[in-house]
Amino acid sequence: MKHILIVVFLFTTVQFSAQTDAENLKKIYSNSLTNGMSYQWLDHLSNQIGGRLSGSLNAEKAVQYTKEELEKLGLDKVWLQPVMVPRWVRGAPEFAYFETSPGVTTNVNICALGGSVATPTGGIKAKIIEVGSYTELKALGEDKIKGKIVFINRPMQADLINTFEAYGGCSVERYAGAAEAAKYGAVGTIVRSLNLRLDDYPHTGSMGYGDLPNSKRIPSAAISTNDAELLSGMIALNKNLNFFFSQNCKQLADVQSYNVIGEITGSEFPNEIIVVGGHLDSWDLGDGSHDDGAGVVQSMDVLRLLKESGIRPKRTIRAVLFMNEENGLRGGKKYAEVAKSKNEKHVFALESDSGGFSPRGFSFQCSEAMLAKIQSWRSLFKPYLIHSFEAGYSGADIGPLKDDNIVLAGLRPDSQRYFDHHHAANDTFEHVNKRELELGAASMTALVYLMDTYGTETISNEVELRD
Amino acid sequence: MKHILIVVFLFTTVQFSAQTDAENLKKIYSNSLTNGMSYQWLDHLSNQIGGRLSGSLNAEKAVQYTKEELEKLGLDKVWLQPVMVPRWVRGAPEFAYFETSPGVTTNVNICALGGSVATPTGGIKAKIIEVGSYTELKALGEDKIKGKIVFINRPMQADLINTFEAYGGCSVERYAGAAEAAKYGAVGTIVRSLNLRLDDYPHTGSMGYGDLPNSKRIPSAAISTNDAELLSGMIALNKNLNFFFSQNCKQLADVQSYNVIGEITGSEFPNEIIVVGGHLDSWDLGDGSHDDGAGVVQSMDVLRLLKESGIRPKRTIRAVLFMNEENGLRGGKKYAEVAKSKNEKHVFALESDSGGFSPRGFSFQCSEAMLAKIQSWRSLFKPYLIHSFEAGYSGADIGPLKDDNIVLAGLRPDSQRYFDHHHAANDTFEHVNKRELELGAASMTALVYLMDTYGTETISNEVELRD
Ligand SMILES: [Zn+2]
Ligand SMILES: [Zn+2]
Repeated sequence: MKHILIVVFLFTTVQFSAQTDAENLKKIYSNSLTNGMSYQWLDHLSNQIGGRLSGSLNAEKAVQYTKEELEKLGLDKVWLQPVMVPRWVRGAPEFAYFETSPGVTTNVNICALGGSVATPTGGIKAKIIEVGSYTELKALGEDKIKGKIVFINRPMQADLINTFEAYGGCSVERYAGAAEAAKYGAVGTIVRSLNLRLDDYPHTGSMGYGDLPNSKRIPSAAISTNDAELLSGMIALNKNLNFFFSQNCKQLADVQSYNVIGEITGSEFPNEIIVVGGHLDSWDLGDGSHDDGAGVVQSMDVLRLLKESGIRPKRTIRAVLFMNEENGLRGGKKYAEVAKSKNEKHVFALESDSGGFSPRGFSFQCSEAMLAKIQSWRSLFKPYLIHSFEAGYSGADIGPLKDDNIVLAGLRPDSQRYFDHHHAANDTFEHVNKRELELGAASMTALVYLMDTYGTETISNEVELRD
Repeated sequence: MKHILIVVFLFTTVQFSAQTDAENLKKIYSNSLTNGMSYQWLDHLSNQIGGRLSGSLNAEKAVQYTKEELEKLGLDKVWLQPVMVPRWVRGAPEFAYFETSPGVTTNVNICALGGSVATPTGGIKAKIIEVGSYTELKALGEDKIKGKIVFINRPMQADLINTFEAYGGCSVERYAGAAEAAKYGAVGTIVRSLNLRLDDYPHTGSMGYGDLPNSKRIPSAAISTNDAELLSGMIALNKNLNFFFSQNCKQLADVQSYNVIGEITGSEFPNEIIVVGGHLDSWDLGDGSHDDGAGVVQSMDVLRLLKESGIRPKRTIRAVLFMNEENGLRGGKKYAEVAKSKNEKHVFALESDSGGFSPRGFSFQCSEAMLAKIQSWRSLFKPYLIHSFEAGYSGADIGPLKDDNIVLAGLRPDSQRYFDHHHAANDTFEHVNKRELELGAASMTALVYLMDTYGTETISNEVELRD
């Protein structure tokens, strides 16, 4: 009889709390969809400020704006965390063409890759040679490449359902192609844009030269997918095709910038910290609405949504708007460094940096036991069509926080359209749907609420503690 | 020992077939994403033909085009099924304004609702009165309404996650508002567009007068959401606000049109028919890319994807491109009528009429046992992020096929953006993402393949048969 009573008692408790959770999630989602601030904030970031490359005036405007907006929310603390960031500038617009016969030229759309050096003044003209991948490039060797421009034309793999996998499959071409080609004496690289769609936008993104000395560094640009197809066709017709490009980018001295941080201090365990974040910097071609204005305003709205839903978190919840994810990750590194130096205990960090599209779920870096605990909340998310709770990558900015105890997670929006816009001039506000953005903010808030309520301990951890 | 052998044998069979199924689904999805025809067909339907209102020249062009494209696929049969359809024409563009003081006017964006009568020549001007819903309209009565234009301003409910629910909640206002207002002597109705977003597009859609005699019918138009907000604000300031609108639409005599049908005849059970379809007609304001060009080209590609994946269906698979879903459902009714007259056995019908967005799952009208059988295929769909298999509405065109034996289903794409475009001038090709469309076509093909492979019998049916 006693056993039965206990079972009934436990059952009632779980029932009650599941009801409260369901009610709180409903409040969170309803508030986001009817009174959400994320879209309005994004409108300002995108349309009043615009592209926010690290070290730019716009990046500093974004720091000030988001700090002021966080201050209006009546949080417990809002502050700026200083961080020195690199400053790369694009300079005068890039220009490129191929030459089918002397003086007969066709312009193509390119943009310098972030971190690239400029071409010599007046541009550079050379024979162009096409390779299908980084691996192919390495196999070609000096005699085939020396003195030429190397065109690395690797399309993203269209039949991968998760487009981030397709992106990952081609990112070495963009990041390391120039350094590799330079080893064999190439004079420049042109890389196919990481875009699954055929269109005219070149997509920038970071590249690096590794330990290549300055004198050996060669300029590298992305070409639009339409022009990559065109160029490939022309090379097939004429193995001696000349290609010209000119770009005027340069790396200036590092400048002072900031991570922007807002905090609701925990009511029971103020020393246990939950971070929710995105990155405030963006590339310069568009206005950075999806990458990562969306993540920034969603993270800000997590704090507001908790307050508006009458939820007083037990743990400290921080929205961290990281600076310089795109070309240095200085903000993410700085945040982790300061956290370590202050001996702060971070229990959970959630990043939104995959666009403001309809949320599908989350990916987690945590123990299997913790993942199972999170998956037990699945039914709470079902009314909101959040269905994917899998192990996987979380986010670049929160990566430096990784240790054995923290649970890391990434918001996983529908990924089909992301690379249509990523790092290109069409990453702009009109391509963000208000409801999709708001559903993302609500989903993040719901997960933060549940992690705060139930903590990151798992039964297997407890068993270990009792050993 | 015998028992154990049987169990092992069954297990092996299931393993083998699950592997084959997984492989076939992979072929289907890969083919759709790398060699799909749906996007190219939609480009033609949208950009070379355009809006396809029943009875229009464009609708007939669409019949010819899709028939020719189906004929290129090497199917077993392609034919046109004649059906008489209504022909409503919009005529000269609508025009509307409100008048804050004599001669001081502000234009607003309206469009006639489909099926509405015209205003008197030169338009109509009258005092305007606002109601929040159909229910409020009914409560007002003759003394408040007589001689006035009634403005029905019911916003879609933003905190419903499934936007089709929000649409359903307001559709009586659009469909029946005018007939109700006419009973109390109103001279016209202006209905807030069924759009969750605030923008300048008026959204048309069907309305009806029921058994109201011709002489009592009053003109009805939709107003954009931005202008509904503006008008509501002006009415709050001035209860005697005058409103003017002019529209020139009319209902002409019925004309001959067609359902377009392509068939792969079943190899084992040719008399058991599976239908996959969408509707070929659209409203006239946009080009009908999402509603329902997407469903048309996806249905066509189901047949091609089955063939290209080397799948020879046991049952007969038909793609049916229905005519006149929007303002009459004549095509759907005709198809069911002919099927019945020929004693055809339809076992499954699947409609795509919710836009070409990222597919999330399917809704089903079937027995619980059948739904459980379908849900047992869930893991096959997981790699493609198809997660929702729920009881629910299927589709208007396939509705007339409903009987006790057929399983009806609807493709359920992500619904957040659908009503931004639905029945408005911005339902256009550039708002359809190629990959999202292709994932929908592949998901439909996968479900058709599994329904064909495993049939629509369920264990509970079998038990009943053995009684
Ligand atoms: Zn980013
Ligand atoms: Zn439709």
